Amino acid sequence: MAPVGGALWRQLCAHQVYGANTNVGKTVVSTVLCNGALRHPSGRKVGFLKPVSTGPLDEADYRHIERFAPGTLQKGLYQFDEPVSPHIAAQSKTIPKDDEILKGVHTTLAKWTDNGIKFALVETAGGVHSPGPNGNSQADLYRPLRLPVVLVGDSRLGGISSSISAFESLLIRGYDVHTVLLFEDDYYKNHEYLRTYFEKRGIPLLSLPQPPERPPVEDADALARDEEALAAYYEKVSKESDVQGLLDGLSTRNTQRIDRLSSMAERAHDLIWYPFTQHQGMTAKDISVIDSAYDDYFQTYKPESTQASSTDAGVLQPTFDGSASWWTQGLGHGNPELSLTAAYAAGRYGHVMFAGTVHEPALSLAESLIKTHENPRLGKVFYTDNGSTGMEVAVKMGLRASCARYGWDASEEQISILGLKGSYHGDTIGVMDCSEPSTYNKKVEWYRGRGYWFDFPQVKMSQGMWRVEVPEELKESLGPDLKFPTLDSVFNLEERVKSDAGKRYHSYIQSTIEELVTKEGKKFGALIMEPIILGAGGMLFADPLFQYTLTQVTRSNPHLFSANAPSPSTTSWSGLPVIFDEVFTGLYRLGRRTAASFLGLHPDITVNAKLLTGGLLPLCTTMASNEIFNAFSSPEKSDALLHGHSYTAHAIGCTVAEKSLQTMADMEQTGQWSTYQTDWSSASSASTNPGSAIWSTWSHGLVRDLSFADSVEGLFAIGSVLSITLRDQTGQGGYTSTAAKGLQQQLAVTGRPYNVHSRVLGNVIYLMASVTSKPESLREIEGLLREALL
Amino acid sequence: MAPVGGALWRQLCAHQVYGANTNVGKTVVSTVLCNGALRHPSGRKVGFLKPVSTGPLDEADYRHIERFAPGTLQKGLYQFDEPVSPHIAAQSKTIPKDDEILKGVHTTLAKWTDNGIKFALVETAGGVHSPGPNGNSQADLYRPLRLPVVLVGDSRLGGISSSISAFESLLIRGYDVHTVLLFEDDYYKNHEYLRTYFEKRGIPLLSLPQPPERPPVEDADALARDEEALAAYYEKVSKESDVQGLLDGLSTRNTQRIDRLSSMAERAHDLIWYPFTQHQGMTAKDISVIDSAYDDYFQTYKPESTQASSTDAGVLQPTFDGSASWWTQGLGHGNPELSLTAAYAAGRYGHVMFAGTVHEPALSLAESLIKTHENPRLGKVFYTDNGSTGMEVAVKMGLRASCARYGWDASEEQISILGLKGSYHGDTIGVMDCSEPSTYNKKVEWYRGRGYWFDFPQVKMSQGMWRVEVPEELKESLGPDLKFPTLDSVFNLEERVKSDAGKRYHSYIQSTIEELVTKEGKKFGALIMEPIILGAGGMLFADPLFQYTLTQVTRSNPHLFSANAPSPSTTSWSGLPVIFDEVFTGLYRLGRRTAASFLGLHPDITVNAKLLTGGLLPLCTTMASNEIFNAFSSPEKSDALLHGHSYTAHAIGCTVAEKSLQTMADMEQTGQWSTYQTDWSSASSASTNPGSAIWSTWSHGLVRDLSFADSVEGLFAIGSVLSITLRDQTGQGGYTSTAAKGLQQQLAVTGRPYNVHSRVLGNVIYLMASVTSKPESLREIEGLLREALL
Repeated sequence: MAPVGGALWRQLCAHQVYGANTNVGKTVVSTVLCNGALRHPSGRKVGFLKPVSTGPLDEADYRHIERFAPGTLQKGLYQFDEPVSPHIAAQSKTIPKDDEILKGVHTTLAKWTDNGIKFALVETAGGVHSPGPNGNSQADLYRPLRLPVVLVGDSRLGGISSSISAFESLLIRGYDVHTVLLFEDDYYKNHEYLRTYFEKRGIPLLSLPQPPERPPVEDADALARDEEALAAYYEKVSKESDVQGLLDGLSTRNTQRIDRLSSMAERAHDLIWYPFTQHQGMTAKDISVIDSAYDDYFQTYKPESTQASSTDAGVLQPTFDGSASWWTQGLGHGNPELSLTAAYAAGRYGHVMFAGTVHEPALSLAESLIKTHENPRLGKVFYTDNGSTGMEVAVKMGLRASCARYGWDASEEQISILGLKGSYHGDTIGVMDCSEPSTYNKKVEWYRGRGYWFDFPQVKMSQGMWRVEVPEELKESLGPDLKFPTLDSVFNLEERVKSDAGKRYHSYIQSTIEELVTKEGKKFGALIMEPIILGAGGMLFADPLFQYTLTQVTRSNPHLFSANAPSPSTTSWSGLPVIFDEVFTGLYRLGRRTAASFLGLHPDITVNAKLLTGGLLPLCTTMASNEIFNAFSSPEKSDALLHGHSYTAHAIGCTVAEKSLQTMADMEQTGQWSTYQTDWSSASSASTNPGSAIWSTWSHGLVRDLSFADSVEGLFAIGSVLSITLRDQTGQGGYTSTAAKGLQQQLAVTGRPYNVHSRVLGNVIYLMASVTSKPESLREIEGLLREALL
Repeated sequence: MAPVGGALWRQLCAHQVYGANTNVGKTVVSTVLCNGALRHPSGRKVGFLKPVSTGPLDEADYRHIERFAPGTLQKGLYQFDEPVSPHIAAQSKTIPKDDEILKGVHTTLAKWTDNGIKFALVETAGGVHSPGPNGNSQADLYRPLRLPVVLVGDSRLGGISSSISAFESLLIRGYDVHTVLLFEDDYYKNHEYLRTYFEKRGIPLLSLPQPPERPPVEDADALARDEEALAAYYEKVSKESDVQGLLDGLSTRNTQRIDRLSSMAERAHDLIWYPFTQHQGMTAKDISVIDSAYDDYFQTYKPESTQASSTDAGVLQPTFDGSASWWTQGLGHGNPELSLTAAYAAGRYGHVMFAGTVHEPALSLAESLIKTHENPRLGKVFYTDNGSTGMEVAVKMGLRASCARYGWDASEEQISILGLKGSYHGDTIGVMDCSEPSTYNKKVEWYRGRGYWFDFPQVKMSQGMWRVEVPEELKESLGPDLKFPTLDSVFNLEERVKSDAGKRYHSYIQSTIEELVTKEGKKFGALIMEPIILGAGGMLFADPLFQYTLTQVTRSNPHLFSANAPSPSTTSWSGLPVIFDEVFTGLYRLGRRTAASFLGLHPDITVNAKLLTGGLLPLCTTMASNEIFNAFSSPEKSDALLHGHSYTAHAIGCTVAEKSLQTMADMEQTGQWSTYQTDWSSASSASTNPGSAIWSTWSHGLVRDLSFADSVEGLFAIGSVLSITLRDQTGQGGYTSTAAKGLQQQLAVTGRPYNVHSRVLGNVIYLMASVTSKPESLREIEGLLREALL
């Protein structure tokens, strides 16, 4: 089922009514509001929607509104008989899925908008966290719609507390509370306290006189008296309370919200200097305005031209976050568990400085990461804020270790790094220097590439076969292109290392290094690689055999780098410190905890970021071996690794990261990805068991089918990454190519129930999922790709 | 009053009882727990503390516990007569301050510990957010103690929601909920739902049978029957419910928490690679273990040797966060408004990628910052994650603008920056290159200082006078040291620029640049300064006249830098782009929105971080003029500023920053710092009005008095910064000096009611407050300084 759009219409002022508790008077408040809206001078049409109702009490609610706000259009979607929580009531009936309920609400409101209804309320049952039919909290269930909230406070003893807690639970989920209503109680005076509380937060509070008490239902006379009393009550409220003022306020906020959305692109275009963006020729129209995000979808403000094109039109459109927000997303946008985790850490610590101190989140995360990596070399964890700074630290570590061991004075001579062409390690100048001159860096005034970068064979599927493509210039040294029946067989390094290609790789790498050091006099201080996928350089899938062999040659031939190198067996690192930049590829991005595990290698230094916090906020770790750590040990303070950002190991980041790691590990252990794994293992050789095969959230069938498409040069999927290299008609390729723009635009077309945000790297378009993405959802996206490419 | 310690004892298992709502049975649950603890095989002594009680109902609670858990030591601290919320009851009586209530609870529990009580409950009134006597939420009021929580859930209809919301409100404030208890209700079955909910979160839930209903109070017979029924109830519970198991669990968690705290230093020492730390010689004892933090205080785990030294001993000690956690803190640790703000942003967006998109927090913050800076030059906002990366961006911007204007090819020749000696702009290699060779950078293998750095006169108070001290080598050029009666007069630039010193500064700077460019052939691409205070370089207070003159000379003599420079009047920036690094000094750190305002200058590029988020998490902005932005405009994508971290403009950071800015601006507007301002303006000339005088949170009297101390070479205070330069007996000074270590250790001594964490920079020790620090609190710290230095 297509994702639901955020519920926002220009012509309709719709709110969700949440109660601070059960029996706080939601129906009375709704009646007051509907009644008020009906009496509005503009003669508004009014709708009241109760998506899920339980028991005769709710029927009474309907009658109540019918009687006291006559003219209100009422609708229910699902009805259960017992007057208990829907999750219990639902046990006796077929339960509607959450998606269906959401769809039902959205469709109803859209239809009402078309029918000229101007004011609508969507009423919930019980309190904010009362369970919906599927047992999850209503506040979570309805979150994708993110309707603005009318909160009915609790005027009883204890009601201050329950009203504020309910409000906080809504905030944690990214709801906007537009107003609070509650009854006046002259003894407890909750309304006075709460008025001050909410007005301080910019939320108007309207207090209403207490409604007459309900008589026992049995007595007809009493019921009649009750009817009269209620009628008088509503009459009094409509005269004496400023309901019209409140309704006008709600309307104004609805309009302001949309006006603001509609102006944001212009204002951003005027004020924001965008990352990685050439602003020349960019117009405000090129900027997507994002109202909120949930799960894998943004809620994007629709261009005005497409807003009114269908009956379920509204101003918001769900947009699949196909770049996983620059490769960061793991556990879904607006994940309430992560929000709460972040809030807990903020509440317990705020930020606590991290030189000479330790706090639980930083220590726990360090311990978990060490466990996660299963790399016996790693003994120390260093924190920074993002991949770029974490790689700066890694480079500082690697260079110091090799300079110390080999006795080089780096202030006198240039120490370089060894890497692969197309690498990318971040945007700060030090790590820019770790990549060969390219579009990304060559115009940066202080860029000075300091290294040697090997070109290498790449893996992709084309014409239904997995291929290892050797660059033309290297065919003489490395041999011809290779074909493999399955992706698993590409990774069968034990066999491949013994093959002809394996031997050629080895001798080519060894002789190249020899020449660089001996003939050109180069000194190398570290080997740096992004294992398996070189991300920003263009989603290059490196032949694992090449990365494996490069590491092995480096480690087993330390004399290549310095005549006085100790023998490999006496030290933990040998030749060069091996740095793996797993900022992008690590922590389940490729379906496994580490990308190193695909190569069966243990780096001496490894860097994690992006998915580390499940996609919530910046944090980075650089882990290193004790031997590398010891290279900084000295009686001199100035020999220490003098690096450390103010927010190093900030508690929120560490706590959220620990939670994310735990969640992903649980998903792995409980087989949450078995649908994906089965899909890929069935395409693999019969001998592979589902747990061990390489797998992707993108279906193997899609990859195979697209590999035959005319416009596709090659593609691959691994973990949550799908990367498609398109044929570039201009023959340019690379980052400046525009070949993939067309497909990107096709996926981004608005007006359909949803669209896809994607990023391109030259002639490469990629899509990325979360570890929590649902197969049905991804198969729909695949449908769009098939439509566009086949 | 001294801050209260976190409430944690090894011998005492103490919990705070919070209710999901009023009337959920807190007293019954407390009675069950006290009763159970009394019956424990080890024969425990038990205490029950109700800090604030209201009305006869509470008296009944006492009698209830006395009757059904006889032997429990009971205590109340404050008693109000009416059975309403304490904030209303308190209106009729003298209200105890929150600090007193906290102190009372802590003292009582400490005394009980000494008296051998093993199990204690501290009961709250009403729900978690029910107001305390001073009208703030109990969850906030008791937060500094951070007692682990026994949450009494709500078994009634709606109780699922209120229990979960109450739990969330506690989490947001950093509480640990150790167990949940509630009554069984076979119809609503809240206990079943909540058991699953809480056990998923590692929190055991014990459900108890429903207690007998309370009879009306008037009837003596009924009361007697009630007594019997209750006695039978408690007997039944103690036999049939696993209260002992629960109590053992609570004990175990208490012990585990302390054991963990006690092991953390060792584990961290083993695993953590600390920032800016020489690990050689460092032992686990040098690591402070921080359990949590609130307001200006950490709760630090006491070294075991000092744990039992006084009656209010416990294992936690409040420690004043005297480095403002590396200069980041503004609004206090554990600030619930910031936690909630962070959670809202996480709930609404998670992280949303920021190339080609815009969301409300990023746009709002950009707009607010432009407004805050009141600098007509600034037109664009670029986001990064921390000061270092933001400065990398600033340097890239500045260099590009000047290379474009002057037609330099930076890949062919070295473009340098102009700055001050002792500058520090971050730890990434690019910005390290913006500082002269020093302890911080010279051993970094890839460091290559690229610039010229002026030495400059410094401001400090000594012997009761404000002095501008000119470095010996510059006296010939700049003239002798100067004396000023007030700090304001040092900043009277209008007058000073016309003085002899002003003229000397001008000609010295102009001739130096001339020589560098003409004779040495240097090319400069940007002028970079930390305005007023050079932080990491040693808290150097630069003579504002020097920084002002350097900027003016640069701007009014563009021909100094390139023969083909346009005339100053035709461009927005002239000579060199002027970059102000306000990462440390900006946003109220020095008492004003910008440090630039002290100089009356408008930089072309300005960088903010640290206080930007009020001290919660990393975020940085680099703002620039439109003309500098336009230097990157071209039809070529590769000419763009190709910089951008994955979490660029993350929603949590932007939302929290916007909230922090707003809060600080409100404090400024409502005169929250008037006590400080009055103190300083009264020490200033009579003509200065309190609003305009330079001021500090540290008292002028302290600065004056310490300036006469033998061991003090000089000192200054401005905004929330106090910096004391100690006489270095070894004559070494600088970052490697150890002169300030002694004072630092004196302040850090444990065993007193609280101690002070501080950082030193060589022979400089500094203390830093938040913008929310209370005068009384800072004056106490000042007392410690006086004690140590006078």
